[in-house]
Parts: sequence; C-alpha cells; structure tokens
Amino acid sequence: MDVELITIGDEIISGHTVDTNSVYIAAKLGEIGLWVTYKTSVGDDLRRMEEVILQALKRADLVITTGGLGPTDDDITKRAIVKVFKRNLVFHEDVLEDIKKRYEARAIKMPSINQNQALLPQGAVYLPNKTGSAVGVVIVEGTKIFAALPGVPREMETMVAEELVPFLTGRVRQEHIRVIKLRTTGIIESALAEKIMPITKLPESIRLAYLPSYGGVDLRIVSFGPTKEMATAPAENMAKQIRELVGSYIYGEDNDTLEGVIGRLLKEKKETLATAESCTAGLLAGQITAVPGSSEYFERGVVTYSDRSKMELLGVSENIIRAYGAVSTQTAEAMATGIREKAGVDYGVAITGIAGPDGGTEEKPVGTVFIAVASAKTVKSKKFTMGGDREINRRRSVYTALEFLRRTILGID
Amino acid sequence: MDVELITIGDEIISGHTVDTNSVYIAAKLGEIGLWVTYKTSVGDDLRRMEEVILQALKRADLVITTGGLGPTDDDITKRAIVKVFKRNLVFHEDVLEDIKKRYEARAIKMPSINQNQALLPQGAVYLPNKTGSAVGVVIVEGTKIFAALPGVPREMETMVAEELVPFLTGRVRQEHIRVIKLRTTGIIESALAEKIMPITKLPESIRLAYLPSYGGVDLRIVSFGPTKEMATAPAENMAKQIRELVGSYIYGEDNDTLEGVIGRLLKEKKETLATAESCTAGLLAGQITAVPGSSEYFERGVVTYSDRSKMELLGVSENIIRAYGAVSTQTAEAMATGIREKAGVDYGVAITGIAGPDGGTEEKPVGTVFIAVASAKTVKSKKFTMGGDREINRRRSVYTALEFLRRTILGID
Repeated sequence: MDVELITIGDEIISGHTVDTNSVYIAAKLGEIGLWVTYKTSVGDDLRRMEEVILQALKRADLVITTGGLGPTDDDITKRAIVKVFKRNLVFHEDVLEDIKKRYEARAIKMPSINQNQALLPQGAVYLPNKTGSAVGVVIVEGTKIFAALPGVPREMETMVAEELVPFLTGRVRQEHIRVIKLRTTGIIESALAEKIMPITKLPESIRLAYLPSYGGVDLRIVSFGPTKEMATAPAENMAKQIRELVGSYIYGEDNDTLEGVIGRLLKEKKETLATAESCTAGLLAGQITAVPGSSEYFERGVVTYSDRSKMELLGVSENIIRAYGAVSTQTAEAMATGIREKAGVDYGVAITGIAGPDGGTEEKPVGTVFIAVASAKTVKSKKFTMGGDREINRRRSVYTALEFLRRTILGID
Repeated sequence: MDVELITIGDEIISGHTVDTNSVYIAAKLGEIGLWVTYKTSVGDDLRRMEEVILQALKRADLVITTGGLGPTDDDITKRAIVKVFKRNLVFHEDVLEDIKKRYEARAIKMPSINQNQALLPQGAVYLPNKTGSAVGVVIVEGTKIFAALPGVPREMETMVAEELVPFLTGRVRQEHIRVIKLRTTGIIESALAEKIMPITKLPESIRLAYLPSYGGVDLRIVSFGPTKEMATAPAENMAKQIRELVGSYIYGEDNDTLEGVIGRLLKEKKETLATAESCTAGLLAGQITAVPGSSEYFERGVVTYSDRSKMELLGVSENIIRAYGAVSTQTAEAMATGIREKAGVDYGVAITGIAGPDGGTEEKPVGTVFIAVASAKTVKSKKFTMGGDREINRRRSVYTALEFLRRTILGID
C-alpha cells in the first residue's frame, strides 16, 4: 500500500526548520512493513493544504500529516480537514479536561486559547497526547486512513509509537520488509561502489542505497517480500556478500554508532577512556557520553583551548608548544599521553587542529587536525585535512578520532 | 511565482536521512524574494520520480530537485529528466576533464563509473560543482525553469550560492520579502501567543509563525510587498510592537544564537569564561566554541564525569559530594567556583544532573539538573527538571545554562 506523509507549516518550507518528523514516522512505519512512497510539505495556507491532502488521498492509502494542530492562529490543519472531509468540529469535554490537567501538573494556568484544541472533526478517532496539549486525529473513510498529528517532535513521536502504530497494525495490509544497514567509514562512496559493483545487479524486490554522511557511508539494503522469509533471505545474503568484499570498512550494522561500538568494546575489556580536546572543544566527549552507561568507561575529558590549560591540565611542556605549535603531532601526542596519565585510564584520545575560519597558515591550512591515541603500549598520532568549514571540520574530527580509537582498541591499522 | 523543491532518494523517504537540503535552498531563494510553496520527496523510483517532476512543472514555475546525480546505480535522476523533457544524454568532454582534475588533486584515481557524470541532457545548461563530481543541470522550457542539483549538502550548497542564485537573479519575477525572526527563551508557545494576541489580527501580506525548539520559541514575521519598502515597513512595525509586549524574553534576532550573543557580550566587556560539565559532558563547551573567535574569551572546559575528576580538576570536596551527592546545588556551585578559580576567568559555568535513562531516584528523578554560574561577585545556582530523554535533557541543559549565563552577564534575573 502507498503511504504519503505531509508535513505542514511555513517553517518547514520557508527554510527555517529541518523536518525530522517525517524521518521518525517513516522509520516507525517501516517496522510494521509500511513503506513511505511520497512526502509533501506545504505552508500554513488553507487552500494549498486542502489541495495537497486531497491529492494525497487520491494516490495513497494511508495519509499522515504533522503540524498545524497547535492552539495559535497559524495552526489551521483542522480547518483544512473539516473542508476536505466535509465534517463539522465537535467539542470534546474530556479532551479539554486532559489539557487542563496537563497545565495543572506543570502549575501553569491553561491559556484560554487552548480550548480550540478540544474541537475535533465529527466522527474522528482521537489519539491522546501524553506530552502536550494537541491531540491527534484519525479519520477512516472506506479503504483510506487519514491521521493528523502534532508537529512538536516529542509529542508526535510518543503518539506515533504508543497510539498510531498500534492503531494501524493489523488494519492495513502489510508487505514484509527487511532493512539491513551496513555502516562503513574511511572510504568514499564511489570507491565503495566499485568494490561492490560485481553484486549490484539487483532484482526488483531488493534495493541498495549509498548514504554518505560525516561519519562515513552507510550501505542500506532493503528487501521486500510477501512473507518474512522471502523478504529476509535475499537481504541477509546480500549483506554477507558485501561483508566479504568491504568488511574491513564496516564498523557496525543498523543502529550501531561508532561511540556505541567503542562503548561495547571497552565494557568487554573492562578498559577506561579519557579525552583531551582543543578545536572540537568537548564534542568528542559529548558524543562518547551520548551512550547510556558511558560513565562506566569514560572517566573525564578536558577542553584545553588555551596553551596555559594544555600545560596545566595535561602537562604539555611549553617547549613543545613553542617548538612545534599547539597544532602539531608533538602536541597531540603530549595531550593524549597527558590525559591518559592524569586520568589514570587505559586510553587517552587527543584532538588539536585549526577549525577555522581563521588561524590557517601556508603550512597548516584551515582543516588541519592532529589526532593522537595513547594506550599502555604506545602513543600513535595522525595528521588529517578535513577541508570543510568550522562546523564540518569539528564534526569530521570527532568521527575520525572515534574510528582511530576503535582501531587502536581492536589492534588494527 | 510558485516554487517547488523535490528531494530525491530512498534515504529521504525511508526514515534514514534528514533532509536539510531543502531548508538551505528555501532560505537562499528567500534572499532573492522567491518563496517556496511546495516540497515533495520521492524515492529512487523512476516512474514516481517522473510523475512528481511532471506534477511540479504543472503547478510551479521554478522546480528544483536535489539528489540522484551521483555515479552509482541508485542515482537515476538524469534518467527521469531525459524522459520528462524527452531529451537525449550528451557526453561532455570538459565535464569529464573537471572530474578527473578533482580526483588528481586528491591523489585518488578516478573510478571509471564517474564517467556517467559527464553525460548531460541535450540543451541543458550545466552548473559546475566546485566540491564534488556531480554537476548541476538547468533546463529552461518556455516560462518554466527546472534545475537538478546534487544531494550532498556541501556540493549542493556551494552550487546554489555560487551558480544557481546568480543564474536565477533577474531571470525571475521577484516579490520582495522581509523576514524578521525574534528569538525568545524561557516562555512557552501558548503563553507567548496570549501576550501577543492583541496585535495578531494580520493583513494577508504579513505572516506570524511560532517556531518552538529546544532553545526556546522563535517568532517569525514574514511580510511581502511589490517594493522593498512595502515589504519592510509592516514587518519592522510588527517587530517593534512585539518587542514592547514580550521584549524581556527576546535574546536576539534572525541568526543570533545564545552562544553568539554571549560571545559579543564577553568581547565587549573583555571578560572570560570556563565551563565544568558532568551530564552534558562537553556539549556546553562545544556549543560556546561553535562561535568563530571564541578562543578570545573561552579559556578551558572540563568534563568531570567521575567524582574523582570533580575533586582533582575542580577541588570539589569529598565531603560535599558525600553529604549532598554529585547531583546537587552544593556540588554545582563548588564546580562553578572551582573552574572559575582554576582557570582564572571571570565566569565559571557548571552543569551537573541526571541525563538518564538510569540513575534517577524518588527525590532526584531523571531530568533533574543543577546549573551554577560563578562570577567575581557571587555564585548562583538553580535546579531544573528537564523531563525528557537522555539527549533532550542534555540539550535543554546546555541552552538553559547559556541563558542563565547571559542573564548573569547582563545582571538580570
């Protein structure tokens, strides 16, 4: 069955907000074998909203909108629904009570405009909102299912996971899908493609996509079938073949992250970690600790932005900084060794570089980054040229350091 | 004139990639008075891609696609263009030369599949790609303009800014737009709306949107007009009225960020800053240093994840941690005072809390965060309940600490 997602709001089409809602919904629907075929965004414009919803109901069997259910004047989705489905708005006392309770719980007086949110299209099923005041609306007409969800990500996500998905499961014909994501790093998309080429003559029922990001290139295999088995076998077979060809670049699967994989390795080995950062200024520590329970192996981190702090917190000698500069192999290695010793951990990771836009030189242009990893045995460092703007250079440095660390822990180069 | 953006790729509709490209394009088009009216996303599916492009050419005057121009098999946008516009692909020697040069510059041998990228639809104008191998394609047919851009954000962004926007400027009728974004924090959307209500009876030519995010609620005023003056005056007048009503919640305008505003304040006052973080583990330092030149006022940061590191790096006494816990007012204040003294700076900011999912207690549930700011005069701290998951609690804590710091610097509560 065809599924269309419609995200509503001027902020979505005007270049002020990134739409993460449709990403979340598509992923959740995928888990029950529903495959999104179209995504449309439209502004807070009643006429165009009606037009887009009508078109979606023509070409898709399940239509889900997000946004425009708030209490404020620019939230007009319900007005569009009323027109499209030719239904009146009905006042729901119980919905208003829930909203009032929510405000009381936060010890805030409910603004009177929130009353609008208790008005729902006639005959609609409503989906409770556990984290906000805008309830969801579901209308079933013939073979078509229409759902309107709030635009605030947290509210929408809870509603999809706890209300919409259970509502849909069973009600819709499900095609089985098996998605396998192989996560690679340290190789560019087209080089990866050339290595995989021999096996990419694919049947209609299977798709291979290359998804490049700062962290590397993900290979996503999507396989469809009328039964679980018929969807699963081809996907797993292809994953096996790809591993044989490019396994050395694959650090994980599906929802694995570099920081998560590193966390698992450190827990297994009962080893610990500390970080010393200059240009990334805490982003490496922040990413390592995105993993729940990371306090088991992450002892501390320091952001040594000034030369003084490098000397005081890491014992980097003034001579090294004078002789080679704060951005150098020597300083990176001294930082890694320093944090490892001060923190008394197994691994010390250090990043020092020139994020930009200023501070570049002939010899060390913006994007030059030195990364070092110190372990009980050795301290190793590498020079990288990130070649992006300030933010990209900082992000790439974090991923590069994580991969450097992963390989050090595994003892591979 | 109506503008439609089409983002292409399974990864966009399948819940694996967030579409930031259309956000960037919409913002750039806005700068030359072009207003995006529709956004559509479709997978790597030739039939649907054709259908979506044809529909866009019907309802919009300018159609821009991103994605599917890469060298790999799943990149089929050019095949769709050839069918929609009934044109052949023509080989461009000069394009191939450029691609080869790019690989040589990186000392990588060009994979032969990149040759596909030198094939362009007959009669198309092509847009050079300064940062990648996929050139852009522009087709002008009658009053309609169609442009196909690569999907890799950096490549697309450079191409839009340096090639497409100059190409479009002048060629298209331009409506003038004035966008003013007032950035608020510390007040919820509906409370803000009630305060602003008196002035929100708006003419057709002006729009007010509420854009909530982790950092607060942005108020976006968009005003249209046939002349610059007729677009500008109403927007600025409304901004003035809103400032009179809710000015105390407004920390900045347009592209201002909390960290940027704080940076300006510290530079003006020639004051310096250091951070001590537990649950946010470097994300605060990372955000403060997202500002170019922040090394002028940011001296250092520490991520004291373990109790030992809190004592060693910040001089927090073991007694305080024993008596009140690592997550407490007393520890937060000791951390802020400690980092301020160790770093020898004007302001010390500290965050300690329970990000979750584990570690919560009856008395201090997940989401409990203590934030302290130490200055020459005093040390102040506050307890917050973030009420989200691990990531949300960490992000909210960072913004809350930044606003706490901003108010401390300005001497307001």
